[in-house]
Amino acid sequence: MFTQRLNRAREKMAADGVDVLLLSVGADLPYFCGYEAMPLERITMLVVPRDGDATLVVPALEASRVVRRPEVFAVRPWSETEDPIALIATLMGSASSAAVGDQMWSGFLVDLMSARPQTEFRRASSITGGIRSVKDAAEIDRLRAASRAVDAIAERLQSGEIPLIGRTEAEVSAELGRQIIDEGHDRVNFAIVAAGENAASPHHEAGSRVIAEGEALLCDFGGTMIGDDGVGYCSDITRCVWVGPRPDREYLEAYAVLHEAQAAAVTAATVGTPAQDVDRASRERIAAAGFGSYFVHRTGHGIGVEAHEEPYIVEGNTAPLVAGNAFSVEPGIYILDRWGMRLEDIVVATEAGPESLNIVDHHLAVVEA
Amino acid sequence: MFTQRLNRAREKMAADGVDVLLLSVGADLPYFCGYEAMPLERITMLVVPRDGDATLVVPALEASRVVRRPEVFAVRPWSETEDPIALIATLMGSASSAAVGDQMWSGFLVDLMSARPQTEFRRASSITGGIRSVKDAAEIDRLRAASRAVDAIAERLQSGEIPLIGRTEAEVSAELGRQIIDEGHDRVNFAIVAAGENAASPHHEAGSRVIAEGEALLCDFGGTMIGDDGVGYCSDITRCVWVGPRPDREYLEAYAVLHEAQAAAVTAATVGTPAQDVDRASRERIAAAGFGSYFVHRTGHGIGVEAHEEPYIVEGNTAPLVAGNAFSVEPGIYILDRWGMRLEDIVVATEAGPESLNIVDHHLAVVEA
Repeated sequence: MFTQRLNRAREKMAADGVDVLLLSVGADLPYFCGYEAMPLERITMLVVPRDGDATLVVPALEASRVVRRPEVFAVRPWSETEDPIALIATLMGSASSAAVGDQMWSGFLVDLMSARPQTEFRRASSITGGIRSVKDAAEIDRLRAASRAVDAIAERLQSGEIPLIGRTEAEVSAELGRQIIDEGHDRVNFAIVAAGENAASPHHEAGSRVIAEGEALLCDFGGTMIGDDGVGYCSDITRCVWVGPRPDREYLEAYAVLHEAQAAAVTAATVGTPAQDVDRASRERIAAAGFGSYFVHRTGHGIGVEAHEEPYIVEGNTAPLVAGNAFSVEPGIYILDRWGMRLEDIVVATEAGPESLNIVDHHLAVVEA
Repeated sequence: MFTQRLNRAREKMAADGVDVLLLSVGADLPYFCGYEAMPLERITMLVVPRDGDATLVVPALEASRVVRRPEVFAVRPWSETEDPIALIATLMGSASSAAVGDQMWSGFLVDLMSARPQTEFRRASSITGGIRSVKDAAEIDRLRAASRAVDAIAERLQSGEIPLIGRTEAEVSAELGRQIIDEGHDRVNFAIVAAGENAASPHHEAGSRVIAEGEALLCDFGGTMIGDDGVGYCSDITRCVWVGPRPDREYLEAYAVLHEAQAAAVTAATVGTPAQDVDRASRERIAAAGFGSYFVHRTGHGIGVEAHEEPYIVEGNTAPLVAGNAFSVEPGIYILDRWGMRLEDIVVATEAGPESLNIVDHHLAVVEA
C-alpha cells in the first residue's frame, strides 16, 4: 500500500517537475510510510527522490519508534551532535525543485533554504493533496467506522444519557473526549461544547460556563482511529441539542432552515459537481431564510488522515467532486451574543450518489437531563 | 507586560536588521500578545513591524476568541473568501527582512515567499528565543507552581497511591493525564509511561503492555498552566519506580550512577557556566561508570511557554547560563531490549545558585501496588 502511494506521488512529481518530496510533521508522513513525526525541535524527514529510494531521517532517540518497512524506506537516525539539515540537503542530491510538507515547521524550511539556496520549494500538498483526497474502499470503511463511533456518542447526547444541566462546558467536553477514546479512537482532535450565546463563536473553546435549562448546546467533536499500519482516519460530527423542555421558537425555526440546508448540500454532493456548488446549495437556502450574513464559514472540508484536508467545500473551489472524495457538510448560523447552531456529517461522493457516513438523527434533540 | 515584551523584540530587530516579525502557530504568539493561534489551515498571524503598530490577522470565525488588547495590537479578521496572504504581504510594507515563527506551517511560508519574492526570511527564534529564555520573577513563580503540581503527582506514583500492577502503560498514562489537569494544568503535553525494556526507547509511547512485578517503570509527564493573561507555562518531570518488592541489582547500581550524575549537573548549572558544561557534568559521570554509550540524548532543554525552548543543554552550546534561564536536567541510561531510566527536574539558574523547581524525592521508589 505504501509503495503504491509513493509511486502515485512519484508520477505526480514527474508531471509537475518536482525532484524531491520532503515530508515531516503532518499527515502526509503516516499516509505514505506509516510513521508519524513528533512535533518537536528535532527534525524528522522522509526524503523521497523522484527517481531514487526514500529515506527516513529521524532523531536517534526516536528511531526505535519507527516500524521498519525496508521495502518502502531506509532509516537514517541522526545523533544529538550531528547536523540533520546537512544530512537532508545531501539526500536531496541534485534536486532543483522540492515539495515540502505543508505543516513542517517553518524554521526547518528556513534552514533548508539556507543549505540549498538554488532549490525552489513548493507545498507538498500540490503533490499529495489530490492523491490523499481520493479514498479507496478500505479508507472509506475506516472513515465509516470512525463516523459510526461518534454517531454512538451523539446518540447518547441526544437521548439525555450524557448529563448536561449543571455541568460546565469543559466537563461535558472532557466526557466527550473520554467517550471518543472509549469508542475506539486513539486521539481526541477536538470536543467543542458551546452553550447559549457561546455557540455564536464557531470555534468556541469549552469553558467554565455552567449549562442551564432554556438554552441550546452545540457539540462538535472528533478524533483519529489509528490502524495497525500506523495510519489514522478521522471522525468529525456536530449536533445541537436544546436543554430543557421548551425550545425557543426562534431557535427552532432557524434550526429547521439549517436542517434543510444541510440536507440540500448533502444531496448536491454528487460526483462531477463543483465543490463550490455544494457550498452554494446550503448557502442559498440559509440566505433565502434571511440568515445569509450569519453563515460565516465555508460549508465543509475534506477529511481522511487529517481532520481538515482537500477538497474544501467553499466558494471558489470549482474542482468537480470525484468518487472517493470524503468531506464534511456543516453549514451553521451564528447570531452574536444570542445563539449559534451547526449541523455536520461526513459525506463521501460515490458513483451511486452521496453517502452520509453519519446517520444519527439530524433533528434538534430536546433533552431535559 | 506584552508591550514591554514587544519593545524588547523591536530592540533586537533593530540590532539584527529585521524589519518585521511574523508570529503564527507556536508559543511566541501567546508570549507576545496573549493569544494562541489554532493550528489549522486558516492562517493566523501577528504582524509586528519594527517601526509600526502590530496587527493580528485572524480568521473571522475565530475572531471572537481573541481577547482584545488595543494597546498591544489591532485585530484584522479575514473572511472565508479573502486572501489572507495578500493581506499579510501588504501589512509587511517595505520590509526587506522578515523573521517568521519557527513553528508556523511551511505551506504558509511558501505562500508568503511567493507573495514577497524580494523579502529575506529568517527564524523568529533569532529574535524571540533569547528574550523568552530569560524568565523574570513572575515567570519563575509560574514555572514553580507548575513544577510543584507535577511533584504532587510524582509523589503519589512513588508512594504507590497510583495503582500500577496489572494496568497497561496506556491506562497509567491516562491517569497521569487526568491528574495533570486536576492539579491545575490546562493541557497535558505528554505522559510517557514505559515499562521494562520499553523504557529503553526515550520517547516510548504508552501502549498496551501490562505492568508487572519485577520491572522498572519510567514516567515522564508534564502540561501547561495557562494564566488569566492567556500565557501558559509548562511542567516536565521524570521519575522511575521499581514495581515489586526486590529491585534488580544491576538496575539499582545504574540508578545510583544516574542519580549522582543528575545531581552533579544541577550543581553545575550556575550563572556564567556554558550550557555544554552542564551536559558534560552528567555525561562524564555516566561515562566513568561505563554507561557512556547508553546516554543517547542531550542533558536538557529550556522550558517556559513552550515545553522545549532555549537554552538547550547540549554539547556545542557554549553560551553561558544567565540568571533566569530555566531548563530541564534529565540525564538517562538506555540499554536496548533490557531497560531504561531517566531522572529529570526543572532547574532555574539564579544569582544565588541553581534552584531545582522539582523537589520530590530523587531516589528510586520501590512500589508494590
